[in-house]
Amino acid sequence: MKNTAILLIDCPDRKGLVAAIANFLYANGANILHADQHQDNDLNLFFMRVEWDLEGFGLSGDAFRAEFAPVAARFHMRWKLAYSARKQRLAVFVSRYQHCLVDLLYRRQIGELNGEIAVIIGNHEDARPLAEFHRVPFEHIPVTAATKREAEQRQWDILEHHQADLIVLARYMQVLSPEFVARYPQRIINVHHSFLPAFVGARPHQAAFQRGVKLIGATSHYVTEVLDDGPIIEQDVARVSHRHDLEDFVQTGRDLERLVLSRAVRWHLEHRILLYSNKTVIFD
Amino acid sequence: MKNTAILLIDCPDRKGLVAAIANFLYANGANILHADQHQDNDLNLFFMRVEWDLEGFGLSGDAFRAEFAPVAARFHMRWKLAYSARKQRLAVFVSRYQHCLVDLLYRRQIGELNGEIAVIIGNHEDARPLAEFHRVPFEHIPVTAATKREAEQRQWDILEHHQADLIVLARYMQVLSPEFVARYPQRIINVHHSFLPAFVGARPHQAAFQRGVKLIGATSHYVTEVLDDGPIIEQDVARVSHRHDLEDFVQTGRDLERLVLSRAVRWHLEHRILLYSNKTVIFD
Amino acid sequence: MKNTAILLIDCPDRKGLVAAIANFLYANGANILHADQHQDNDLNLFFMRVEWDLEGFGLSGDAFRAEFAPVAARFHMRWKLAYSARKQRLAVFVSRYQHCLVDLLYRRQIGELNGEIAVIIGNHEDARPLAEFHRVPFEHIPVTAATKREAEQRQWDILEHHQADLIVLARYMQVLSPEFVARYPQRIINVHHSFLPAFVGARPHQAAFQRGVKLIGATSHYVTEVLDDGPIIEQDVARVSHRHDLEDFVQTGRDLERLVLSRAVRWHLEHRILLYSNKTVIFD
Amino acid sequence: MKNTAILLIDCPDRKGLVAAIANFLYANGANILHADQHQDNDLNLFFMRVEWDLEGFGLSGDAFRAEFAPVAARFHMRWKLAYSARKQRLAVFVSRYQHCLVDLLYRRQIGELNGEIAVIIGNHEDARPLAEFHRVPFEHIPVTAATKREAEQRQWDILEHHQADLIVLARYMQVLSPEFVARYPQRIINVHHSFLPAFVGARPHQAAFQRGVKLIGATSHYVTEVLDDGPIIEQDVARVSHRHDLEDFVQTGRDLERLVLSRAVRWHLEHRILLYSNKTVIFD
Repeated sequence: MKNTAILLIDCPDRKGLVAAIANFLYANGANILHADQHQDNDLNLFFMRVEWDLEGFGLSGDAFRAEFAPVAARFHMRWKLAYSARKQRLAVFVSRYQHCLVDLLYRRQIGELNGEIAVIIGNHEDARPLAEFHRVPFEHIPVTAATKREAEQRQWDILEHHQADLIVLARYMQVLSPEFVARYPQRIINVHHSFLPAFVGARPHQAAFQRGVKLIGATSHYVTEVLDDGPIIEQDVARVSHRHDLEDFVQTGRDLERLVLSRAVRWHLEHRILLYSNKTVIFD
Repeated sequence: MKNTAILLIDCPDRKGLVAAIANFLYANGANILHADQHQDNDLNLFFMRVEWDLEGFGLSGDAFRAEFAPVAARFHMRWKLAYSARKQRLAVFVSRYQHCLVDLLYRRQIGELNGEIAVIIGNHEDARPLAEFHRVPFEHIPVTAATKREAEQRQWDILEHHQADLIVLARYMQVLSPEFVARYPQRIINVHHSFLPAFVGARPHQAAFQRGVKLIGATSHYVTEVLDDGPIIEQDVARVSHRHDLEDFVQTGRDLERLVLSRAVRWHLEHRILLYSNKTVIFD
Repeated sequence: MKNTAILLIDCPDRKGLVAAIANFLYANGANILHADQHQDNDLNLFFMRVEWDLEGFGLSGDAFRAEFAPVAARFHMRWKLAYSARKQRLAVFVSRYQHCLVDLLYRRQIGELNGEIAVIIGNHEDARPLAEFHRVPFEHIPVTAATKREAEQRQWDILEHHQADLIVLARYMQVLSPEFVARYPQRIINVHHSFLPAFVGARPHQAAFQRGVKLIGATSHYVTEVLDDGPIIEQDVARVSHRHDLEDFVQTGRDLERLVLSRAVRWHLEHRILLYSNKTVIFD
Repeated sequence: MKNTAILLIDCPDRKGLVAAIANFLYANGANILHADQHQDNDLNLFFMRVEWDLEGFGLSGDAFRAEFAPVAARFHMRWKLAYSARKQRLAVFVSRYQHCLVDLLYRRQIGELNGEIAVIIGNHEDARPLAEFHRVPFEHIPVTAATKREAEQRQWDILEHHQADLIVLARYMQVLSPEFVARYPQRIINVHHSFLPAFVGARPHQAAFQRGVKLIGATSHYVTEVLDDGPIIEQDVARVSHRHDLEDFVQTGRDLERLVLSRAVRWHLEHRILLYSNKTVIFD
């Protein structure tokens, strides 16, 4: 099993930055496995992801934090240290459609996702048997306009109880309140069944069908307070023609949704995503 | 060289339709090379394209029209008869960017497009040398807000003079007036450098860049009076990442634009496109 | 639920063919929902798929066969009549990897596949719990070089018992004997984890990795006596780069395999596939 | 205009490598614009591309070479220093088909390619007018089996005369001799009209058509002494169906060939490609 540390950095770009980071890691015996960096030369920003083997590395997490702090301060870095051995805990929200959930559970089963599915929350009962087959707790929380506030309170309690790090909306058909979203910044991933920003909102397949597009899409993104407007993580498309009716759009869309959602979740769990200007940097 | 006739039909769907058409063609000795049909079962519509060899076919164009009329009337058909040997005449409108024009001219040169490029109209002079190299007349018609009406009048005159069947806007950076568009229904093809309906209007690459999309697109469509809203003929996309700056979007976009525009023009020239409900049926 | 008949035809191309078929169907009251045809003008062959509503159609299966026989004889047709209401029965063969099986079972569950998964046969026990969750009989038949003949005998017995119409090799890691294959002509679908004909045989991902390809693929095809040589039904590819190691190839490949296998199975079950010259015509 | 230096490095992977490089560049005032690295952890290899602004950089080329030598020696680096302002000189070889040549010339014209097309060599006269339109010298060197050796001698002379850095085979239909190839290691780029390693050798479209593939491809690669076996730089594919005849394969293939060849040339000219184990690392 992988036993690595990952350091994610973003800061203003400046000469000497890479040298400072590389020297720090080298001085502490890091055996770097992957390093990737990105510069936005227009905005003068610097982004880096570096992953190293913990075997032979001299610093504990606390020691790292203490000793790296002055380097970080000098360059005005925002930074995050993560450990691959520390499995993140996922809460998956579903409604009736289970194609994304089936997919996530199977990927988890075979080790594609570096995290634990801690709990599944459904506003319908449909997914309970599948959850039980995979031995994941299932919580049924119906949501109506009248009960939404209290339903979200129950969701919060469950998320707290299961110590969820990440919420995945796997074709969850309810809109979360701004208060809920605000509690989990860059920690809620949604899949929208269109090629955003085309066909924002409800019934995107129907809208795409009516517009007569020749490709349909799906988009995974972080959820922000503005509907379907958060930073895009991944998109994909498939070709359609006049021979496809609306049901074909829906069917084709399912395959896209599974792919773009699972990629987003995997990259998040592997600490590959940085945000800026409502966009994502994906270190692949 | 191909010497074929093409019959395009759309009408309400009804039993006996295919039998009636097939019997008519068989009775007149048609050797069918391609036939394709489509039914929209929701709207109860029927569409057909059939192409046959004129060798051994018993009817002239006039005779066909006379004899097919009662069949068409019985089934309330809209129909069109075309001959592959009758080359359609294209007028290509350009501004400064020539990538689509270069592409169309080369495809015409090697016989990919079954039509003649009769004239190139530019609101800048840039494309003149290329036009001359290909021995195509070039007309420079500058357009400003003040001179637009009279510029369009000159364009009309030139189109009339060259007997243009189809107008291709090859990254032509001017919006045509509704009056102009109305004169050429389903006879003006534009390429828009986005995945419509995302990023309608000006500067779609910039808008896509700011939104942080992971795929960029291009769309060819018939021009209608509503900007970027006409029936979509073809779309394609290419992957981008945080490593792509705006110039990379533009460069990648050029390849998409050439492809989707040339496909649309080819299909139009081969009488493969039918319209309904602001959508296209493409008989491929 | 759909209650339609599907007629599949292939024969030498000849004038009057479509008229004869259309007249026959019209005379018997067929309300045609979809019709598609293809001509190979080089080989002078004609292919057709027509699907009609059985409501109001005047002929039973036997009557159809009796009355259509002279039409078919006149044009030297090979033809097949199928009913959408008659669910075909699938036997799925698996080894250890379950991604294709998970996919097929879920698609069956939501009605994407017009057939029943009658039995799952594994040469390992791994898939048993999944089979049980979906309430599909699971048969464990280990295969070694020494026991292959008798294992295939047991497989035959099970296939007979379950009246399997179609065998799907869902990443089944054993090669079937020519005798076995010969019993199920055009009735065994395999998925190979490469873009055939590149990387025939064992370990295609490893071979692709060593060759340094920039796209990897997967192929679904009918099984014939020559390994990985049968008629290709569907292929798809995904982009890889130097950043992908062999494990990434395998992971990316899984998504491709599921897609190309499920499409092949769906098209087969919907009677959309015709064969000629070791190729497929897919009426989509 | 860009005025940058690019350093390409490959060497055994070792702790301290990035620190050593970063310190060297920082000490000499390099303002890094892009840096990308790759590690092959299986083979324990390290690859890096770093590009910096020459404004404010303290070392001339000679001084760089002198001062970087000990760093390079310590880590057993192979390395190359290049300057973006130094335009590389291309020789494009063509036969009759001009689609790739048209494409390269236009991309050069608008500045997509950071190099000069110094000369076009054709074994047919067809491309001469196009060369003249772009004011590029054209040399007609017919090649037959009998005259091949002397034709290659003339080609060498012309390449020497024009000081060609890179040879681009733009659908050049002659096989180069091993002696010729050996003179230009990693300096000849070819485009093959198949998805290599499928359909190596002559007539790949015909072979693909006969095999009944559902996607066709094109591949750009460095030429080595083994035909169609050199390191792959780029590949792309397009979907085909039973509706496509051989001519459609050829037509669709042309679009793929232009794209994969131009990408390869662009990356080469931007010093983005490193080779190892007969594979390419593409720093994008």
